[in-house]
Amino acid sequence: MKTVIINVIVVTMNEAREIHNPGFVMFEKDTILATGPMKDLPKEENVSGAHFIDGKNGILMPGMVNLHTHMGMIPFRGLGDDCKDRLRVFLLPMENKAMDQEMVYLSTRYAAGEMLLSGVTSVLDMYYYEEEAAKAMDEMGMRGIAGQTVMNEGACDFSDPFDAIAYGERLIKKYAAHPRISACVAPHGTSTCSKEVLLAAYQADASYQVPFTIHTAEMDYEMEYFRKDYGMTPVQYLDSIGVLGEVTVAAHCIHMTEEDLLLLKKSGAKVAHCIGSNTKAAKGVAPVTNMLEKEIPVGLGTDGPASGNTLDLLTQMKLCADFHKNETKDRSAFPAEIIVSLATIQGAKALGLDAVTGSIEPGKQADMVLVETGSANMFPVYDPYSALVYSANPSNVEAVYVAGECLVKDKSLVNVELNELRDSLIQKMKKTEFRKYMVL
Amino acid sequence: MKTVIINVIVVTMNEAREIHNPGFVMFEKDTILATGPMKDLPKEENVSGAHFIDGKNGILMPGMVNLHTHMGMIPFRGLGDDCKDRLRVFLLPMENKAMDQEMVYLSTRYAAGEMLLSGVTSVLDMYYYEEEAAKAMDEMGMRGIAGQTVMNEGACDFSDPFDAIAYGERLIKKYAAHPRISACVAPHGTSTCSKEVLLAAYQADASYQVPFTIHTAEMDYEMEYFRKDYGMTPVQYLDSIGVLGEVTVAAHCIHMTEEDLLLLKKSGAKVAHCIGSNTKAAKGVAPVTNMLEKEIPVGLGTDGPASGNTLDLLTQMKLCADFHKNETKDRSAFPAEIIVSLATIQGAKALGLDAVTGSIEPGKQADMVLVETGSANMFPVYDPYSALVYSANPSNVEAVYVAGECLVKDKSLVNVELNELRDSLIQKMKKTEFRKYMVL
Repeated sequence: MKTVIINVIVVTMNEAREIHNPGFVMFEKDTILATGPMKDLPKEENVSGAHFIDGKNGILMPGMVNLHTHMGMIPFRGLGDDCKDRLRVFLLPMENKAMDQEMVYLSTRYAAGEMLLSGVTSVLDMYYYEEEAAKAMDEMGMRGIAGQTVMNEGACDFSDPFDAIAYGERLIKKYAAHPRISACVAPHGTSTCSKEVLLAAYQADASYQVPFTIHTAEMDYEMEYFRKDYGMTPVQYLDSIGVLGEVTVAAHCIHMTEEDLLLLKKSGAKVAHCIGSNTKAAKGVAPVTNMLEKEIPVGLGTDGPASGNTLDLLTQMKLCADFHKNETKDRSAFPAEIIVSLATIQGAKALGLDAVTGSIEPGKQADMVLVETGSANMFPVYDPYSALVYSANPSNVEAVYVAGECLVKDKSLVNVELNELRDSLIQKMKKTEFRKYMVL
Repeated sequence: MKTVIINVIVVTMNEAREIHNPGFVMFEKDTILATGPMKDLPKEENVSGAHFIDGKNGILMPGMVNLHTHMGMIPFRGLGDDCKDRLRVFLLPMENKAMDQEMVYLSTRYAAGEMLLSGVTSVLDMYYYEEEAAKAMDEMGMRGIAGQTVMNEGACDFSDPFDAIAYGERLIKKYAAHPRISACVAPHGTSTCSKEVLLAAYQADASYQVPFTIHTAEMDYEMEYFRKDYGMTPVQYLDSIGVLGEVTVAAHCIHMTEEDLLLLKKSGAKVAHCIGSNTKAAKGVAPVTNMLEKEIPVGLGTDGPASGNTLDLLTQMKLCADFHKNETKDRSAFPAEIIVSLATIQGAKALGLDAVTGSIEPGKQADMVLVETGSANMFPVYDPYSALVYSANPSNVEAVYVAGECLVKDKSLVNVELNELRDSLIQKMKKTEFRKYMVL
């Protein structure tokens, strides 16, 4: 049966950046059939029997794409936020003590629910025990790539990084034919993986054409390590060993030289920009204006809940506007339309999924978000891009569709209770070290 | 009848920064009687017949104080956001064409409703026709100071600035005995008012001990004007003519020399920090870390809806954390507790209202906000300050009390329908030039 969403401002994010106001979108099963202004709505005989949904003057935008996060880390959110050495004081010890398969599964389910409620429909995740993450994302109905993290020194799941790579490869094969879920090997960082590990991971990802995603040029110690030991930047190093390519999704890229940017451009690598996490951690502002001038593909990431706290892209969009306008000392820089494109079609391009999602166009998957304009903060609307970037917050997300399935309706999850997601995660956390710190 | 809110994390913001978890707050009529941990709840015989409210593990914090905004400007929100010369292209012409008493009244009602829904209970407003603003804030039940703006070149309400000052003085007297509403004369800016206007305004405000609030060290042209014509900074100029004092609430203070900060400190002047508006307009980040080191009183402002778009302080708190941590290159700088204090007790101090509001303490007015922790973004909670600054958004505000009156319950306004506020404003806007631009 066809479904037709009517009386919405359709922000298509197609090549021409068409907006239909008032507009409609018609889809059937998982696929968008048509979109346009209401006056072009196909005659009733063609859509008789269709399910009509009144969007009540909301803004219908493409599902948002979160290019970088760690869904398994929900239990860490808010723990030691303002602590100078949080990574070593809280994160690493707790990860070793309390993280296991079940925690990753329950946390990823929760994170998927939270992201869906905020309009994120696609995600590139990066953590441990990613078979659990893939299963959780699949069950929650979202579109996701489960990135199995690999570190030289070993992690909570595998002590040998090559075992982790082999696990990641098995996961890639397992999900190769899945309509929404895929997997990749995601080396932790430029300085936390050996050359051999990076090459093996890249080979796996490149051969299956899935993202090779890696923390890049994020940390001071990382920059210092490559300067001292190699006389290079991390990007130069990745290029020198041959792992900078079309499938590379470099997360963060805060500390960039002009040559780094030219290498990114030449290689076809993509950037996951995580403004909230980077600035909360006082790491700096990535030179995204320069990246966009060079037409380097950039999308937005929230980073994990331990780093950026929120998992929605509306918050990131507002931060993006404020930080980059302020950096460039130009209030007209980084306009709202560009920012919405980073959160949607550019993110999809970075994942190689732009034929599938990231814009509202016939033939693409019906991944769409209805943002209501009835709440106090959403009035008036002069420009839908402005309303999305400067006015909206995640609570304005009214409905969410992934592959044509309505997963959020009336601001609530359709297939599962949020309370159930939370309660099962709490019960698990209470059996671990986390109980020592929780106040609720 | 006494009311007792139970089962909440009480973030008191008292001098000792006590947190009661789980805690209670008891109040009667407009006044807080007691707060403490649940185990200290007065025995039932003492509170028999009291009205008990279960806060369901929410965070109960003091009502937030918005130190700088322009409530009459709701119709401008989102108009020309990314336009280089928005002030001259959109704002000034439209203000002259479309702004009148009724628009200010309807817009201020709307803004008051929006702010209350987000947990702002006190506000220092600054705009034209402020008798209408005072009336609107009073009707909405909030605590507010109506700042009558005065400009040399005249504005939509008065062509002669001295007429505007006289109107402001009448307003101060009219509300002198009001329990929640007061007024002040608010000169527009350091370079847009003559010395005579500034002096007359200051005299009026100082004699009634109400805030003398003024845009200060915000604009490039302002800095250039004082440099060229006076060889001074704006703050030096205000000091030199004798209008920097205890009642001065200088909004923005972006461009500060070390001497400026010492002058602010010496004079007892306060600062309204508007991080969202300042950075969206690419104006820079005020040196708030330095201000706090010097113990200059700083509170938070949203600026008007045309500038910062959102009117809630939760958004400002997050921006504050990210911008100031990033500026100081220290992730432990500007911790969440400090940020919550700026939004509450420090804001109240800046208005001279700290004996009345800004913390949850016996004897103070019952101005309180219940932030629920049941939504997806609010889990887990390790530290309530962290949860408020890094996790919360305005949609988490569950209930709001001003002077003991419940104005927001179940995330909705109690005494008025949001739809009614919006519809009456839309009808008015449709009779003006605004209709040309609105898309909804």
